[in-house]
Amino acid sequence: MSKKKSQTSSQIPQMKSPGGDGLKIIPLGGVGQMGKNLVAVEYQNDILIIDCGFMFPDESMLGIDYVIPDTTYLEQNKSRVRAIVVTHGHEDHIGAVPYIAPKLNVPVYAPVLAAALIEINLEEFALKNQVKVIKYKPQDKIRVGKAFTVSFFRVTHSIPDAFGLIVETPEGIILHTGDFKFDPTPPDGIGADYDKLKQIGDKKPLLLMSESTNAHTPGRTVSEQVIADTFMDIFASTKGRLIVSSFASRIDRMQHVLSAAAKYKRKVAIAGRSMVKYFDVAVKLGYLKVPKGLLVPLHQIKRIKDHQLVILSTGSQGQEGSALQRMAFKEHRQVQIKEGDTVVVSSSPIPGNERSISAVINNLYRAGAHVIFDKKMQIHVTGHAYQEEMKQMLELVRPRYFIPVHGEYHMLVAHKELAESVGIPPKNIFVIEDGDVVEFKNGKAKKLKDRIHAGSVLIDGLGVGDVKEVVLRDRQTMAKEGTFVVITVVDKRGRLVGTPDIMSRGFVYVKEKGALMDMAKQRVQNLFKKHVKEIPDDWTNIKSKLREQLSEFLFQETGRRPLVLPVVIEV
Amino acid sequence: MSKKKSQTSSQIPQMKSPGGDGLKIIPLGGVGQMGKNLVAVEYQNDILIIDCGFMFPDESMLGIDYVIPDTTYLEQNKSRVRAIVVTHGHEDHIGAVPYIAPKLNVPVYAPVLAAALIEINLEEFALKNQVKVIKYKPQDKIRVGKAFTVSFFRVTHSIPDAFGLIVETPEGIILHTGDFKFDPTPPDGIGADYDKLKQIGDKKPLLLMSESTNAHTPGRTVSEQVIADTFMDIFASTKGRLIVSSFASRIDRMQHVLSAAAKYKRKVAIAGRSMVKYFDVAVKLGYLKVPKGLLVPLHQIKRIKDHQLVILSTGSQGQEGSALQRMAFKEHRQVQIKEGDTVVVSSSPIPGNERSISAVINNLYRAGAHVIFDKKMQIHVTGHAYQEEMKQMLELVRPRYFIPVHGEYHMLVAHKELAESVGIPPKNIFVIEDGDVVEFKNGKAKKLKDRIHAGSVLIDGLGVGDVKEVVLRDRQTMAKEGTFVVITVVDKRGRLVGTPDIMSRGFVYVKEKGALMDMAKQRVQNLFKKHVKEIPDDWTNIKSKLREQLSEFLFQETGRRPLVLPVVIEV
Repeated sequence: MSKKKSQTSSQIPQMKSPGGDGLKIIPLGGVGQMGKNLVAVEYQNDILIIDCGFMFPDESMLGIDYVIPDTTYLEQNKSRVRAIVVTHGHEDHIGAVPYIAPKLNVPVYAPVLAAALIEINLEEFALKNQVKVIKYKPQDKIRVGKAFTVSFFRVTHSIPDAFGLIVETPEGIILHTGDFKFDPTPPDGIGADYDKLKQIGDKKPLLLMSESTNAHTPGRTVSEQVIADTFMDIFASTKGRLIVSSFASRIDRMQHVLSAAAKYKRKVAIAGRSMVKYFDVAVKLGYLKVPKGLLVPLHQIKRIKDHQLVILSTGSQGQEGSALQRMAFKEHRQVQIKEGDTVVVSSSPIPGNERSISAVINNLYRAGAHVIFDKKMQIHVTGHAYQEEMKQMLELVRPRYFIPVHGEYHMLVAHKELAESVGIPPKNIFVIEDGDVVEFKNGKAKKLKDRIHAGSVLIDGLGVGDVKEVVLRDRQTMAKEGTFVVITVVDKRGRLVGTPDIMSRGFVYVKEKGALMDMAKQRVQNLFKKHVKEIPDDWTNIKSKLREQLSEFLFQETGRRPLVLPVVIEV
Repeated sequence: MSKKKSQTSSQIPQMKSPGGDGLKIIPLGGVGQMGKNLVAVEYQNDILIIDCGFMFPDESMLGIDYVIPDTTYLEQNKSRVRAIVVTHGHEDHIGAVPYIAPKLNVPVYAPVLAAALIEINLEEFALKNQVKVIKYKPQDKIRVGKAFTVSFFRVTHSIPDAFGLIVETPEGIILHTGDFKFDPTPPDGIGADYDKLKQIGDKKPLLLMSESTNAHTPGRTVSEQVIADTFMDIFASTKGRLIVSSFASRIDRMQHVLSAAAKYKRKVAIAGRSMVKYFDVAVKLGYLKVPKGLLVPLHQIKRIKDHQLVILSTGSQGQEGSALQRMAFKEHRQVQIKEGDTVVVSSSPIPGNERSISAVINNLYRAGAHVIFDKKMQIHVTGHAYQEEMKQMLELVRPRYFIPVHGEYHMLVAHKELAESVGIPPKNIFVIEDGDVVEFKNGKAKKLKDRIHAGSVLIDGLGVGDVKEVVLRDRQTMAKEGTFVVITVVDKRGRLVGTPDIMSRGFVYVKEKGALMDMAKQRVQNLFKKHVKEIPDDWTNIKSKLREQLSEFLFQETGRRPLVLPVVIEV
């Protein structure tokens, strides 16, 4: 389990402002770690929020569903927060809206597709009418508070309708790329706004914030058109049933499948809740073109011949409970994998998911399928710029200052090195992390000494932030060593009544460990005999002795340290 | 958490033999998953074991230290087991010797370096004199039982002294590659036995078992000599202190550092218990050449100037508690990372370790170090053959039959496809998994219908196999949802005495959840009121009602399902 600085909000000083009256850039998520993107831009009485995402927990955050940015600072300065503007519809940019927007009571500006996805999320939280979602178009200009005007430049990414932001401020123009790459032949034919970027470059912008995901990867990304061609090839050469899994939000990938299916006369069925959700939205808003009669409901696929069917499915990361994972483990009601099936896993493993993807691929093979995945063929391309595209962005915009965003610390450092290589002076580049503040005033920039409280709020089931450090620590202990409950009944004079009881879970296979349990009980009895005279009306002392001594005894016997929970009941 | 078929040994049928009186190949580990390599070769009254390794647990095996093969079948046929022969000294080939060899009471044959490492392991288990370890040399021929003669062919790998086995049997010659690659310029100058392999190829061998780790990777591996050159470059260009981390068993990598240090006049210090262990053994046996006066004890590094020091360290996988991890998190007593340090992380992430490596690299950067790792420079090369080398092995040996070993199922399938591409007929290739049996008789081969009991034995602390499915399941529940203990005291008539008590851990932050706890107590009281008349002398019924109803209540309130443990005490 990796160590993390996972701050949870116990004691937070009330903080009106980090000091300074210039323009301030305050990342509260996504800078120094991947995901939960949120940057606050502050000028005097106005705060603008760029993106509002969640992230998935790391492996030390046991049982946690999502992690959102800690927005205590924004809540404390709620009256000054004017708007949330999101760059595109991925969950690491919009996923925290239902948690944060109602608390701040601000409108959310979003591109058309992202706006629709936000609305769906809000509906699931029964918050539909409590947050104002406003669609923006490429040519729009939005006034935010007195200080800011926001306009947009289109970028290419792995979801349609992705934008970078141009924020005009009293201190100068700042740009935020959102997530981007430069695909010269994007599948929808709508390229990035190179001209607009160049024009802004001519205006000598103050600051660029640009994403750093692939800052270590040399060269340029391959065009999504290559993947479209590969899909055509796969369809042309596949004889049996086809199952294609990818991220539900990869609408471009869905289009490849639809186009190839139309050409090679296959019907298309959709499997997986989130795939259906994105598919429906994309069709409704015109981001997907579906020829008439192409679709077939999943429960009717038995009627279709194998070579005339393709199933679009979720689960390309091997996620537990996803459609493809259930198919691989023979738990899917409608789709049973069989000899002759071809399964395309069209994504690259997100770090941490390698083993679950492998488990799915292995089981698909065991069931007799032929599997096409990234190790065998290029059937996926990232949505994030490689080094040459990052440099291109820097060279188009030619900012005076540069802050790399969206990345772990080592990616930010790599992006800094790239920026230096295209001529940005090292002193004009700030490698900062969530909670750091950079202030711009009269054309000069400095990192402030004071940091803003930043961190993670953990979402577990219905609970927002109610899982604290201590809860996680207990989970970690119980995960590794189990728990060991000792129940003792004592009389008013502190003497043990009857034999102590033991309940252990996740510690040893109790049925085979009777002797160990008996020895533990004996220890408890001995301890009570010794301590019978000590303060029988306060059990704290004897409980902590029980904990210590049993813990030590169990460690000696088993090499494990379960969470020992002593119960003393006075009768 | 990925689903796995992790069999643990509850009910095992006594099994004398899988049937058939031919030559049988029975993998019990490493075939269908990575690690814990063990293949049994059986002919009538003789069983030979090839390799005896452990593996690290997958993420669903919470709290488990190691996993070893289930050798129930071998134990039941102990009298016929003649020897364990290991191919090289990596833990996935020797790590289970202390657990398995004493139970089977057989000698262990090993190359010189592996033998020394096995002896060290046995010493740690206080088993030194209970297992006979016999060193073999490249030219040796070992008689094993009546059926087998074992000789060896040298291969190149990521540890010196690695061999493949040639087993002469009454049914023909079978070969097992161990782990291998073909490095034309290995750092110790000792190449693979191409000639011997070719000669055996001329004898028309029956079967080849060859490793499949990199069966998806096209081309050939880069020579370790390239890495040696890169190390020289790094030493030449580095001004400050150097810290190089790699696998402790990469003795070739240590030699690069020693040679470069000698040339560039740096002293060498060693950090990390396992690095010291391998270093000492390698020096003692002559596998490492250390110029006089080159070493400096770690506790004396303060005396050495930064540009005259290099520290060799463990922790290249970001392992918790490893030397490099402690340095990165400022927990190392002797080594504090500082501005100007250069850290080389000389390994590639093993799937599952990406996040912990990233955490270490991020913190090294935060401490001001410059970090060189695989994404930035080729400072590591695998020890396992790529596709062209796998094909070369197949073409040298030209076996009649082929069984891919050492790999997850999808790698075995990929290796099968390679074998077909060099002309092995598909019907002569067996993609099998642990517990499957392939029988060879009169030159013909078939997979038997009966499988042998195979699976995993989990090592947790001092316990071998005492963590069963149910224990892991409880750990998984408590890891994600925590535990919720309800303590009730009842009188002889089944009436509740006093207020129920609740202890929860890893569930919610109790201090902020008083109301929830009170509501839960109220539920317990209500339940007792209703059920007071029911069989008060058997608490099973009321306990299961407590479990059900509280579980449901807590889920509704929190979205979580902690492990509910009801305690009923009768007074």
